[in-house]
Amino acid sequence: MKALVFHGPGQKAWENVPDPVLEQPTDVIVRIDSSTICGTDLHILKGDVPEVKPGTILGHEAVGTVVEKGSGVTTLEIGDRVLVSCITSCGRCRFCKERRYGLCAVMTARLFTPAHIVAIDLDDTRLEYARAFGADVTINNGSDTAVAAVLELTDGLGADLAIEAVGTPETFELCTELIRPGGRVANVGVHGHPATLHLETLWIKNVTITTGLVDTHSTPRLLKLVSEGRLDPQPFGTHHFKSDEILDSYSAFADAAKTNALKVVLTAV
Amino acid sequence: MKALVFHGPGQKAWENVPDPVLEQPTDVIVRIDSSTICGTDLHILKGDVPEVKPGTILGHEAVGTVVEKGSGVTTLEIGDRVLVSCITSCGRCRFCKERRYGLCAVMTARLFTPAHIVAIDLDDTRLEYARAFGADVTINNGSDTAVAAVLELTDGLGADLAIEAVGTPETFELCTELIRPGGRVANVGVHGHPATLHLETLWIKNVTITTGLVDTHSTPRLLKLVSEGRLDPQPFGTHHFKSDEILDSYSAFADAAKTNALKVVLTAV
Repeated sequence: MKALVFHGPGQKAWENVPDPVLEQPTDVIVRIDSSTICGTDLHILKGDVPEVKPGTILGHEAVGTVVEKGSGVTTLEIGDRVLVSCITSCGRCRFCKERRYGLCAVMTARLFTPAHIVAIDLDDTRLEYARAFGADVTINNGSDTAVAAVLELTDGLGADLAIEAVGTPETFELCTELIRPGGRVANVGVHGHPATLHLETLWIKNVTITTGLVDTHSTPRLLKLVSEGRLDPQPFGTHHFKSDEILDSYSAFADAAKTNALKVVLTAV
Repeated sequence: MKALVFHGPGQKAWENVPDPVLEQPTDVIVRIDSSTICGTDLHILKGDVPEVKPGTILGHEAVGTVVEKGSGVTTLEIGDRVLVSCITSCGRCRFCKERRYGLCAVMTARLFTPAHIVAIDLDDTRLEYARAFGADVTINNGSDTAVAAVLELTDGLGADLAIEAVGTPETFELCTELIRPGGRVANVGVHGHPATLHLETLWIKNVTITTGLVDTHSTPRLLKLVSEGRLDPQPFGTHHFKSDEILDSYSAFADAAKTNALKVVLTAV
């Protein structure tokens, strides 16, 4: 059989491996069948979803990331006004160079039936994606004034929930500025630098700020939603490859800024 | 009758007022009977506590402040390890110049039966107060290293809940540094300046940060606890005055740094 073999960080090759064996305690053999794999998240299917055709996206670890992001997201109530702040990339993770957190936030926020979802970004193409994924209103922060626009949309109050989906001080601080008294900021982005927390205004506003890392506990629940047609992750699959094109798929994924790849889908040959 | 009459900010006098009347829509006539009043909080007794002798402290708005301080405090669970960070004053409100928030945090945290309560302050006298109010461990941050001491007390993990009871960037940032992964920071202090939020370490730690202003919804519940002997606010009454000494009581309260006044108690003459 052919397999993608990892020989170390950045060293991977499509090789003949007639009889794969575990040589080191850290080795793993994965047969790509009808599930998607990304990063460190792997869910072993246990009959919790029906048969699907090859190439179907079943779950999405970034969807899980958003759903699990602490009480800030999961206490979302029907009729809440949600802001997804994704100024620099509509959710472009600095690790995997994707642009999916913001879009996952838009998609999963809809599960809670908010009154409306506002997406903010600097790039109109990404805002088109956001609308396609369910954002009711999009604001280009490069040409509009985000604060004024959001306040106008929320009767001067601000958002009930603001999801920070990028990982920069600017987007986080914008979220804390745009929530209403009693509102929540759910931090989803991966940060490399500190942010300024304006306690001189926030101390009196009864706000809740949550951070967190996905632990995939929501995966079975999300798979049920996919299985029952309540959640459709197919639009994330922008680029399709056969499994023997796996090195090309990695290139498309790594160069997402040019290829506009959200998720690459591999189909077994 | 004699009354303390407010003629405007900072202008008050003990005067003969034979027949008090409301002259302006913002006027209020308060008969001091068996309740304490401070700031803007006033609870009208509705038979929810038994008769008490004059001069008894029934409730305490700062206790309410702490109890109401969002899910960060009220989700405190049995066995949690609690840190009360009160470096500069063990809870010295920059508005009313008291030093009670930290002590109230210590007292009310005990209602939830935590494993232990650690109080941090720069002043040994205030740490003695904290011990008297129920702190199990006190750390003088001027001579010890607070972070190392708290980590040693918590098996290297950090506190489940850190209550910021001062209102300075330093105490807030210390709290975010001293909580364990999954921990909470409940901000009680009144802030005048922004703080640095170290998202480069906190984004992955599943933390929850709450802020808020007391709205006294907890007052009836706290009065029940006082009535049943579960909560004893008497130690807050460090200075006692007759009602015709009310101007002296204000002075003692205003100069708390010298008088060590926590609450002044007025008894009707």
